Amino acid sequence: MKHLKLKPRMLLAGALLGAAAFSPPLFAAEPSADAINAYAIDNFFLMISAVLVLFMQAGFALVETGLNAAKNAVNILFKNLMDMAVGAILFYFIGYGLMYPGEMFAGGWFGFGGTGISGASPEVAGGNLYPAVDFLFQVAFAATAATIVSGAVAGRMHFKAYLIYSAVISGLVYPLSGFWKWGGGWLNTLGFHDFAGSLLVHALGGFAGLAGAIVLGPRIGRFNADGSPNAMPGHNLALSTLGVFILLIGWYGFNPGSQLAIVGADNTNAVMMIATNTTLAACAGCCVALIFAWILFKKPDLTMALNGMLAGLVAITANCDAVTYDESLVIGAVGGLLVVLGIKLLDKLQIDDPVGAWPVHGLNGIWGGIAAWIFGGKPMVAQLIGSTVIPLWGFGTMLVLFLILKAFGILRVNKEDEMKGLDIAEHEEEAYYGFEIFTTQ
Amino acid sequence: MKHLKLKPRMLLAGALLGAAAFSPPLFAAEPSADAINAYAIDNFFLMISAVLVLFMQAGFALVETGLNAAKNAVNILFKNLMDMAVGAILFYFIGYGLMYPGEMFAGGWFGFGGTGISGASPEVAGGNLYPAVDFLFQVAFAATAATIVSGAVAGRMHFKAYLIYSAVISGLVYPLSGFWKWGGGWLNTLGFHDFAGSLLVHALGGFAGLAGAIVLGPRIGRFNADGSPNAMPGHNLALSTLGVFILLIGWYGFNPGSQLAIVGADNTNAVMMIATNTTLAACAGCCVALIFAWILFKKPDLTMALNGMLAGLVAITANCDAVTYDESLVIGAVGGLLVVLGIKLLDKLQIDDPVGAWPVHGLNGIWGGIAAWIFGGKPMVAQLIGSTVIPLWGFGTMLVLFLILKAFGILRVNKEDEMKGLDIAEHEEEAYYGFEIFTTQ
Amino acid sequence: MKHLKLKPRMLLAGALLGAAAFSPPLFAAEPSADAINAYAIDNFFLMISAVLVLFMQAGFALVETGLNAAKNAVNILFKNLMDMAVGAILFYFIGYGLMYPGEMFAGGWFGFGGTGISGASPEVAGGNLYPAVDFLFQVAFAATAATIVSGAVAGRMHFKAYLIYSAVISGLVYPLSGFWKWGGGWLNTLGFHDFAGSLLVHALGGFAGLAGAIVLGPRIGRFNADGSPNAMPGHNLALSTLGVFILLIGWYGFNPGSQLAIVGADNTNAVMMIATNTTLAACAGCCVALIFAWILFKKPDLTMALNGMLAGLVAITANCDAVTYDESLVIGAVGGLLVVLGIKLLDKLQIDDPVGAWPVHGLNGIWGGIAAWIFGGKPMVAQLIGSTVIPLWGFGTMLVLFLILKAFGILRVNKEDEMKGLDIAEHEEEAYYGFEIFTTQ
Repeated sequence: MKHLKLKPRMLLAGALLGAAAFSPPLFAAEPSADAINAYAIDNFFLMISAVLVLFMQAGFALVETGLNAAKNAVNILFKNLMDMAVGAILFYFIGYGLMYPGEMFAGGWFGFGGTGISGASPEVAGGNLYPAVDFLFQVAFAATAATIVSGAVAGRMHFKAYLIYSAVISGLVYPLSGFWKWGGGWLNTLGFHDFAGSLLVHALGGFAGLAGAIVLGPRIGRFNADGSPNAMPGHNLALSTLGVFILLIGWYGFNPGSQLAIVGADNTNAVMMIATNTTLAACAGCCVALIFAWILFKKPDLTMALNGMLAGLVAITANCDAVTYDESLVIGAVGGLLVVLGIKLLDKLQIDDPVGAWPVHGLNGIWGGIAAWIFGGKPMVAQLIGSTVIPLWGFGTMLVLFLILKAFGILRVNKEDEMKGLDIAEHEEEAYYGFEIFTTQ
Repeated sequence: MKHLKLKPRMLLAGALLGAAAFSPPLFAAEPSADAINAYAIDNFFLMISAVLVLFMQAGFALVETGLNAAKNAVNILFKNLMDMAVGAILFYFIGYGLMYPGEMFAGGWFGFGGTGISGASPEVAGGNLYPAVDFLFQVAFAATAATIVSGAVAGRMHFKAYLIYSAVISGLVYPLSGFWKWGGGWLNTLGFHDFAGSLLVHALGGFAGLAGAIVLGPRIGRFNADGSPNAMPGHNLALSTLGVFILLIGWYGFNPGSQLAIVGADNTNAVMMIATNTTLAACAGCCVALIFAWILFKKPDLTMALNGMLAGLVAITANCDAVTYDESLVIGAVGGLLVVLGIKLLDKLQIDDPVGAWPVHGLNGIWGGIAAWIFGGKPMVAQLIGSTVIPLWGFGTMLVLFLILKAFGILRVNKEDEMKGLDIAEHEEEAYYGFEIFTTQ
Repeated sequence: MKHLKLKPRMLLAGALLGAAAFSPPLFAAEPSADAINAYAIDNFFLMISAVLVLFMQAGFALVETGLNAAKNAVNILFKNLMDMAVGAILFYFIGYGLMYPGEMFAGGWFGFGGTGISGASPEVAGGNLYPAVDFLFQVAFAATAATIVSGAVAGRMHFKAYLIYSAVISGLVYPLSGFWKWGGGWLNTLGFHDFAGSLLVHALGGFAGLAGAIVLGPRIGRFNADGSPNAMPGHNLALSTLGVFILLIGWYGFNPGSQLAIVGADNTNAVMMIATNTTLAACAGCCVALIFAWILFKKPDLTMALNGMLAGLVAITANCDAVTYDESLVIGAVGGLLVVLGIKLLDKLQIDDPVGAWPVHGLNGIWGGIAAWIFGGKPMVAQLIGSTVIPLWGFGTMLVLFLILKAFGILRVNKEDEMKGLDIAEHEEEAYYGFEIFTTQ
C-alpha cells in the first residue's frame, strides 16, 4: 500500500490546484479550500478504515474462542486483547520506525527521544495524510498479523510465552518484512505486489502459527495412536459466526483502506471496486467451501463455510486492486477449495491447528500473491519470490522463537493444566461461571 | 431511492461548477477539484452506508438465533450466512440487472458475457456514484430482504430447501418488485413512495416469511389441541439484544444511505434528518412496545421491547425523508403497538413465526408505507396500492415456491429430526459443544 | 466540545471562500462548491461519530451483562436498552433544550410546541452542522452517561426504579451539568477543559453509580460478616471482552467526534491525533492493569485487563486534544493503576459495584480532568473545580433520588427475588433457556 499509491493523486491534485484561479503563485503557500477539503476527506477515510481494521480484533477473538473448548475461552480472548494492547505500544516505540524508516528520519517517528509522532506536522500541500492516522492504520495491521497466530496455538501454550511471541512479531518480525515491501525495501524494488497484505499480514501470521502448532505439538487427544484425527469441536459457533461477520466488515477497512486515499477519481473508483471485489471473493469462498465440504463430508458444515468466507477474503487481499469482478469470484472460489484441502492436509500431517489459521491465512495468503500474477498481471518472478519469502520468513523466525521458548521450558503447559483448561490453570477464571459444561476433551 | 434522488444535486453541482472560474468552457471535460472532492465524498458515504447495511446480516443472525432453541442455532446462523453469500452472487449475476435494467444496458451490468460491472467507467461529471458502490449498497439490501425469512421458518425447514428459497428471492423476487419502484417501473410512475424499503425490503421479506410459516405449519408443541399457544423461549437473549443493537447501527446505513448522496446542502440536511428520525422512531417503538406489553402481560418483557425497536425502525423506513421528528415518534410508537398486536394475532391464528418476522417486518412495513401518506403527504392511492401489492407479491410468489418444495417433500424435516434439532440432524454440528442443555421443547 | 471549537475553522473557511474568484460579493449569499463540500464532510463526520457512540450502548450492555450472574442477564440487557430508548426521547423533549439553551431559542429546540428540531434550517454559510446531527451526537452522549450506572446497581434494583433513575439522569441531571460546560455555562466561563467528557459523561455516571451502590447496599453474600469480600464472578467473559472491543471502537466516535469538525487542517490533524492518543491510552491502561493485577493477585486476570483498557479510555477523554502521544501512554498507564486500586478500595469499603463502574468511570474520569491540567496545560484551578464539582453533582443528585426511591420502598427487590434472579423475578424470562446453570451466588 504505502508510498507508491499516493503520488499520482497528489500530482493530479497539485496540477489542478496550481491551475486554479483562486490559488495564484503569489499565495502558493496558502492551501486552497479544495486542498483543505481533500485533506479532510482522505484522512477521514483512512481513520474510518483504521477503525474497521481494529474492529477485526474482536472478530478474531470471537472466531478463535468459539472454535475452541469452553475451558480455554478466557485464555484466547485474553491473547487477542493483549495482541492489540502490547502490539500497539511496541509498534509505536519500535515497529513503525523499522517499517517506515523514511518517515522516521523525516519526522522523528520513534516514540522516544525525539518529539514522537507529534513532531511531524506536514503542510497540507505536502502530503495527503496526517502521520497519526497512518500510524493508526498501520498499527491495526500489525495487530492483525499478531493475532492470527493465537488460534493456531490455542489450548496448550503458556500465556507468558504468548506475550513474548506477540511482542516479537509486532515489534520486529512483521515490521521488518513489512519494510521489504511497504517501507520501500527490496521486495518493492523487485516489483512484488501485495496490495493489502495477503502475504505481509496473513501469510506471515498463518505461517508463524504453523510454526507454533508444529513446535507445540497437538493437543492431548487430537490424534490417535494410528494417526487418525479426532474432532475437537468448538464450544460456541454463534460467537464464531458473529466473528466472521465482524471480520468481513473489518475487511472493508483492510482492503479499500489500503488505497490510502479516496480523493481523485482514480482513487475513488479503485476504493469502490476493491470493496466489491472483496465482497464477491468472500461470498464465492463461502459458497465453494460449503459445496466442496458437503461433497466430501456429506453434510453442510458451518465451520467450513465460515472458513471459506475468510479464505476468500485473504485470497483477494493481495490483488483486489488489480482484478475484475469475475476474477474475484474465481479467486475466492479457489480460496474456498484450498481451505478445505488445507484442513485435510494438516489432519494428514498430524499438525493441530485448532481454528485452521494456516489453511485460511497461510495457504490462501500465498494463493493471493500468486493470483496477483495469474489474474492481476503482476510480474511472475516477483510474485513467486514474494509469495515464497514472506511465508518462509514468518515460519523461520517463529520456529526459532518457539524452539527457544521450548528449550527454556516455558512454551507448553503441563498435561494436567491442559486437561483442566487454561482458564483455570493460567488465569484462575472461568469464562462461563455457573454453566454446567462437560470437559471430555 | 435510486434514480429520482440524484438529479437535483447533480444539476445544482453542475450549475455551480459551470460558473466556476477555474473550470472554463475550454477545459469543460476536465473535472474541477470541487467535483473530484464531491465525487469522493458521495462514494465514500455510500460505501460506509453499504458496510453498515451488510453488518445488519450479523444483527439478523443474532436476533433470530437467540430467539430460537439452542438445538437449531447452527442452522439459523448458517442460513443467515448463506443468505448473504448466495444472495450476493445471484444478485451480481442476475438480480442487479433485473432491478436496474437501464444500468445494465448502459454499462454491461450482467456479470457474465460483457465486461461486467468493471465495464462501466462513468465520467466524474456524468454521475456521482461509481457503479461498484451502488452495486454494493443494493446487494446489501437484497441480502436483507432474504434474511428476514429465516427467522419465520426457523426450527423445521430443510437446509437445502432454504438455499433454494434464498436463491429465488435474491435473484428474482426481490429484484423484480424492486424494479417496479427503484428501477423506475410502474410503481414509481404511479408516484408510490418507499424511501428506503419498508415495503420493498421489509414487507416483502416479512410476507415471504409468513407464507413460509403457513406452508410449513407450526413447530411440534407450539400449539395445543385446543389452539392455545405454548411459549417456546429463545435460548440466548444476550445474542438477541446484541443483534438488535447491531441492526439499529446498521439502519444508519439503510435509511440515511438511501439518500444516495450527501453532497449538496439538501442532501446533507436530508441525511442528518433521516438519521434522527430513524433514532426517534426506534426509541418510540421500543418504549411503547414495552409499556403496551407490560399492560397486557403484567411484566416488562425484553423480547417485546426488542421487537418494538425493530418495529419502529421498519415503520420509519419508507417515510423517514418526509416526516418531522415529532411524527417519527408517532410512527415508531404505532409500530410498537402493532408489533405486540401482530404477535398476538399470529398466536390466535395458530401461525408459528418464531421470531415475529411478520409483525416486525410485514405488518410494520405496510404501516411504513401508509404513514408516508398520512404523515409524509405522499399520494394516498399510490401508497395504498404499493402497500398492498408488494406484500401480496412477496406472499404469493413465496407461497407458490414453498408449496412446490412441499410437494417435492423437501420442505420440512421429519418429526424425529425436528425434535433432535436441526443442528445435529442437518449439520451434525452442535452450536454449544460441551454445554449441558435441556431440550424439552 | 460544543461552541468553542467551531469558530476558528469557520473563520478560516470564510476567509478562503471570500477570496475565491468564483464566489464574488455579488453572489455572496450563494454558498460556494467548496463550502458545500465542507458542509457535507463535517456533517458526515459527526454522523458517523454519533453512530459509533451509539454502538457503545451495545458495548456497555455486553460488558455489564457478562460480568454479572446469568440469572440477571435479561435485566441488565433490558436496562441498557431502555437507557437509550427512554434517554433519547427525554433528551429530545427536555434534555437537549436544557443543555444548549442558545440553540433552543434560536431554532425552537424543544421538541414540542415549536417546530422542533425540524424548525432549524441553518444556512450552509452560517454554521457547519445541521442541527439534527448535533442532536444525534449529543443524545448518544446522554445515553452513555445513563448506562454507566446500570452495572454498578446490577442484581438487586427494581426495574421500575431503574427506569425512573434513567429518565432523571438523561432528562435533567446530565443536561444541567452538561450546560455548565458544553452549553456555555459557568464551568466553561471558568476555563474548565473537558474535551469529550471524562467528567461530564463518565465521572457523572460513575459517581451516580457509586451513589446507587451505596444506597442499595451490597448483593446478598458479597461480603462476609468480617467484612471480607467474596468474588461473584461474571457468567460470560466472551460477551464482556466483545463489549470492551465494541467500546474501544465506539470511542473513536466519542473522542475524535468531539472535535465536531474535520474540515480545516487544524481540525483534520486534531481528529487524527485524538484517535491515536485514544488508542495509546487504551493500550497502556490495559497493559498496566494486567501487570499490576498480576503482581498483586499472582495471576493474569482478564477482567482487570479489560477494565484497564476502559480506564485508559476514560482517562484520556478529557485531554486527548491537548497532550502528546507519550503523555497519552502515561495517562492511560496511570488509569490502569487507578482502576485496580479503585476496585480494591471498594472491597475495603464494602461497597458492591459489580462491574467496577466507579473505578473505571468515576475515578478515572477525575484523573482525566486532572491530567488535562498536569499534561495538557489547562488551568489548575478550573480543572480542580470541575473535577470536584461534577462528581459531587452526580453523586449528590443521585444519592437524593436513590434515597427517595428507597423511602418509597421501590428501590431494592426482596431477598427471595434477588436469590432467584431478576430475570425470573422481574421479567419472567430467562436469558439462557434450556441451559443448566448453577445459581450458588
